[in-house]
Amino acid sequence: MNISRPSLLIDKEKVKRNIRRMALKAKASGVVFRPHFKTHQSKEVGKIYFEEGIRQITVSSVSMAQTFARWGWNDITVAFPLNLREMATVNRLASQVDLHVLVENPFTAQMLAEKASAGLGVWIKIDTGYHRTGLSFDDFDGIDEVLGRLDSSGFLRFKGFLTHAGHTYHARGRGEVLEIMETALHRMKLLKQKYGRQHPDLQLSYGDTPSCSMAGSCRGFDEIRPGNFVYYDIMQYHLGSCGLDDIAVAVACPVVAVHPERSEMVVYGGAVHLSKEFIAGEKGFSLYGYVVVPEEDGHWQAPLPGAYVRSLSQEHGIIRLPQDALEKFRPGDLVGILPVHSCLAADLLKNDTLFV
Amino acid sequence: MNISRPSLLIDKEKVKRNIRRMALKAKASGVVFRPHFKTHQSKEVGKIYFEEGIRQITVSSVSMAQTFARWGWNDITVAFPLNLREMATVNRLASQVDLHVLVENPFTAQMLAEKASAGLGVWIKIDTGYHRTGLSFDDFDGIDEVLGRLDSSGFLRFKGFLTHAGHTYHARGRGEVLEIMETALHRMKLLKQKYGRQHPDLQLSYGDTPSCSMAGSCRGFDEIRPGNFVYYDIMQYHLGSCGLDDIAVAVACPVVAVHPERSEMVVYGGAVHLSKEFIAGEKGFSLYGYVVVPEEDGHWQAPLPGAYVRSLSQEHGIIRLPQDALEKFRPGDLVGILPVHSCLAADLLKNDTLFV
Repeated sequence: MNISRPSLLIDKEKVKRNIRRMALKAKASGVVFRPHFKTHQSKEVGKIYFEEGIRQITVSSVSMAQTFARWGWNDITVAFPLNLREMATVNRLASQVDLHVLVENPFTAQMLAEKASAGLGVWIKIDTGYHRTGLSFDDFDGIDEVLGRLDSSGFLRFKGFLTHAGHTYHARGRGEVLEIMETALHRMKLLKQKYGRQHPDLQLSYGDTPSCSMAGSCRGFDEIRPGNFVYYDIMQYHLGSCGLDDIAVAVACPVVAVHPERSEMVVYGGAVHLSKEFIAGEKGFSLYGYVVVPEEDGHWQAPLPGAYVRSLSQEHGIIRLPQDALEKFRPGDLVGILPVHSCLAADLLKNDTLFV
Repeated sequence: MNISRPSLLIDKEKVKRNIRRMALKAKASGVVFRPHFKTHQSKEVGKIYFEEGIRQITVSSVSMAQTFARWGWNDITVAFPLNLREMATVNRLASQVDLHVLVENPFTAQMLAEKASAGLGVWIKIDTGYHRTGLSFDDFDGIDEVLGRLDSSGFLRFKGFLTHAGHTYHARGRGEVLEIMETALHRMKLLKQKYGRQHPDLQLSYGDTPSCSMAGSCRGFDEIRPGNFVYYDIMQYHLGSCGLDDIAVAVACPVVAVHPERSEMVVYGGAVHLSKEFIAGEKGFSLYGYVVVPEEDGHWQAPLPGAYVRSLSQEHGIIRLPQDALEKFRPGDLVGILPVHSCLAADLLKNDTLFV
């Protein structure tokens, strides 16, 4: 392959397969599929989604919403607690597309109600157990207060309750992931019961790739917002969300040094390409990626057994691999690294991608 | 401050002070000061260096060399094992500026000798104990072989031996850092003795911020290449390379949620702004940054006692802080985060910087 610098190889067929599988599950579950676009942030991957029938999307920043609006998307949820410092941009964007924002406290709801000057959908962010952000699912006073303030503006439409069960990333195995999802569903349904009479159209929106991948069905929610599944990665593989063959991206890296004396090679590909995300094992063991060999057309087969990225500097990646595998490499060769966290690698390599 | 999204605040006076201090030390030590520009990758910070008399620089990729060549720099070392896949660019750039590359194995030396078509300085990368890359300081056969192959091309000038004592980052305290530096100097001097007769102009080039910061003098080397010191960061502070007041960058982040029930607040500022670099404490404790309060002019005072970034998602930062400090914040406020690794934060925020 004619690649000289670290580049994100995107396997288009795997992307399509991953999208179709999730879209099918959403359809069978009777829920809206509003995939999270923060994973890829790519115009081209957006096109694949569009071809697969997707019209509603999720992003994690107002800037990303602007970008995708420019690329023609017109139904966008910014799944991040509203940043009051961007109200001018939010208002401008809301006058152009169907924009939805998240509110998770009365103060922000009040400011939003005062400053909104264009029609906006508003979700209340609910904490169903992750404890990163959101109003607790049983904080009815807080929810009532937010609802009251939203009501005071003619521009705001209350959409419903939105949650992200990010603690699935810390779960041990499928059973625990599904239990988290079950709990989230139960807690969200209580809210629907409580507020449904007053707001008959309110919806329940749910995110996260591990549970949406592992669950047989997403029935009970009204909308799902997984994002990472479009590429998957080693983290998801370790959680049990996907097979290695479902991972749709690899970071192509030139080999620059081979060190048989310590069974290692050095590649041009470091923290500024892959991010410092790792999987921690026992006794200080860290894993920053698995290693594949890109073929001439850019596709790759299963990872090399026993090979892994053991550390990353700013631009260097250090790969440890068995002697017999090591012997096949020399400086100037190309390897592929299946990233631990594809969202971060894709963000870093936004301008260096190649579809294969 | 009129900041709506995560931005890198760069304190110009601190930058100048950090540069002057290191330049003075280099001068007093009688060594060339060739700072590493990978830390800042900034045209403007480059200008400050230029005003301080710097004309020779180090970068960590050919792309970075191209960028700084375009910005007028014409004596550049690419301190990264030569990537054979970029030979065309290397040749082109070498015909425009005084370019120096690193070689660390006979195979690459051979290919370089065959493909070089413009004058190039070549350093042999030596491993003095870090074991990331380089020929071992006592691998005379390897060094002889590389030298022999370099000799076969009329375009290549052997510059000397270059090492990076990156293991200072794992040292416990000043004593261990200075010991590592001492060992590196001793090993490099052995090489100078051995090859000095044959190559009377050969130089010894040494890098890394911790030892160059902590050592009273860098005498014995011919050139030093620290980079991080221009900004410093929490990692360097923890190592003992700098005081908190020497840290010249902070990532300004809007507050989006305040959670008194768990003494936390959430800011817009995550892994795509700060990187996932952290300092690991005991019992799974992780620290992703300290917290400061930017004043109206963008400057900041000492970090808030007891406040730290405890975790990062793609766009979220979770800050833990004492109740009495927490009470002063509400959504829409701005905080500054002193990053754990300024090189990575600066890389991520290249297009969102503000000099204060």
